[in-house]
Amino acid sequence: MRHIHIIGIGTGNPEHLTIQAINAMNAANVVFIPTKGAAKSDLADVRREICDRYLTRDGVRIVEFEVPKRSIQDRTYTQSVDDWHAAIAQIYEGLIADLPETGAGAFLVWGDPSLYDSTIRIIERVRNTDTCAFDYSVVPGITSIQALAASHRIPVNLVGKPVEITTGRRLTETGLTHESTIVMLDGEQAFSKTDAPDAEIFWGAYLGTENEVIRSGRLGDIADDILRLRAEERARHGWIMDIYLLRKGRDFDD
Amino acid sequence: MRHIHIIGIGTGNPEHLTIQAINAMNAANVVFIPTKGAAKSDLADVRREICDRYLTRDGVRIVEFEVPKRSIQDRTYTQSVDDWHAAIAQIYEGLIADLPETGAGAFLVWGDPSLYDSTIRIIERVRNTDTCAFDYSVVPGITSIQALAASHRIPVNLVGKPVEITTGRRLTETGLTHESTIVMLDGEQAFSKTDAPDAEIFWGAYLGTENEVIRSGRLGDIADDILRLRAEERARHGWIMDIYLLRKGRDFDD
Ligand SMILES: C[S@@+](CC[C@H](N)C(=O)[O-])C[C@H]1O[C@@H](n2cnc3c(N)ncnc32)[C@H](O)[C@@H]1O
Ligand SMILES: C[S@@+](CC[C@H](N)C(=O)[O-])C[C@H]1O[C@@H](n2cnc3c(N)ncnc32)[C@H](O)[C@@H]1O
Repeated sequence: MRHIHIIGIGTGNPEHLTIQAINAMNAANVVFIPTKGAAKSDLADVRREICDRYLTRDGVRIVEFEVPKRSIQDRTYTQSVDDWHAAIAQIYEGLIADLPETGAGAFLVWGDPSLYDSTIRIIERVRNTDTCAFDYSVVPGITSIQALAASHRIPVNLVGKPVEITTGRRLTETGLTHESTIVMLDGEQAFSKTDAPDAEIFWGAYLGTENEVIRSGRLGDIADDILRLRAEERARHGWIMDIYLLRKGRDFDD
Repeated sequence: MRHIHIIGIGTGNPEHLTIQAINAMNAANVVFIPTKGAAKSDLADVRREICDRYLTRDGVRIVEFEVPKRSIQDRTYTQSVDDWHAAIAQIYEGLIADLPETGAGAFLVWGDPSLYDSTIRIIERVRNTDTCAFDYSVVPGITSIQALAASHRIPVNLVGKPVEITTGRRLTETGLTHESTIVMLDGEQAFSKTDAPDAEIFWGAYLGTENEVIRSGRLGDIADDILRLRAEERARHGWIMDIYLLRKGRDFDD
């Protein structure tokens, strides 16, 4: 049977690679690399660099493939994601079918495969089509949450307290409901619309890469600075990925 | 100035080590290893194994130290944690003072230093005493959340939905409030008291180690099996560390 390794590669620093990830890459016949778009091209470069550094076994091939764009016209959000996954699943199916019959392929996933990433879901979709038998395994990776916390040298939780991981869209809907809230996938800078001037924000963009930039402070004081900086950085690079922690209260407060 | 590396080492599998972690260990003059207790002794073994495998630079010393127990008598939870951190800070202070004046030390932290771990807090305490100048940096590691998700081959979030990370105690207090809830530090098996028979549970113990065990299913169907298995495993090893995800609903439900 064919085997697929879904491998978390961390968030831009090639040194985020784990030994397990390196071993899984080298166990594959083919490593698949997604390309396309400005962000995608920088991200593809990170993956190529990772292959350059860590693929030491002879004969591992690298195959690049284009990721289709998500269409949002005339669809609900859910439909649009579902259609998009179906389109990617078709591409994966072709890639997997092209593997030797007992060969292995590796998908290099940004961060960790379990966090706001659909590689696992899409691979499950391909398996359910039953066109080509294969098994798969998942190798964990450093997430952008860990990268953010490490660069700021902070714990994400207050002592014994919970943490919420959410998206920009949801933050705008629900406001801050936890002492610690991590916001990802925020295209609308929800922090700047959140009515919590006394919360602390720990923000970071391009974490792990040479363009990493971080800021922290009282939200009411620095929200505007971050908005400005984010717009500048985005214009400069043509894309941005950022994440932040909003924190209310302190350890041992209660 | 002295430098301290706070290094995430993953959750039991030495192959969780990142290249960055291995480089930081090898940049240290001394690697500190906490010892004591049944769990602590197995966990110390993992750290020793990691040093054996990955310390390749000559002259890196390993120094073991005893972690004091947390006293809970006549104190609130908060006081007891605060006192405990103060006691550990005193020990760290001694370890750091013993480093060469421009030397580096490394603390190997289970999982990732940002998640329910107080090494960063305690190092900050030591810095605030001003007895011995040093700087520090944090190296991210694979958390037990990523290890759980990888072993079950699941995403932690539903598409576009938030995730809560919480403790057993809090889960009992608040019940399930999110589609995806990750429960850690659960000494009371809060899942078995949660009134959500239709939720799915993805449970794992000793993740990453040779004793790893995982179970998943409808909570109402398998809660009792997990309780039994957990008790058996705990009796067998003398300690247990477990974590689980509770999930309500499905992708593309709405
Ligand atoms: C589709 S999700 C993928 C998350 C990834 N699987 C992980 O484990 O971090 C993309 C979001 O992750 C965050 N992110 C990923 N990499 C990042 C980086 N290097 N710097 C800042 N944020 C990042 C951003 O919030 C971005 O919108
Ligand atoms: C004090 S916290 C430390 C968490 C750690 N910093 C991390 O990143 O996973 C200890 C809790 O983490 C979880 N945990 C840590 N290692 C684990 C493992 N190998 N298997 C299962 N659960 C684990 C358990 O919920 C345990 O109660």
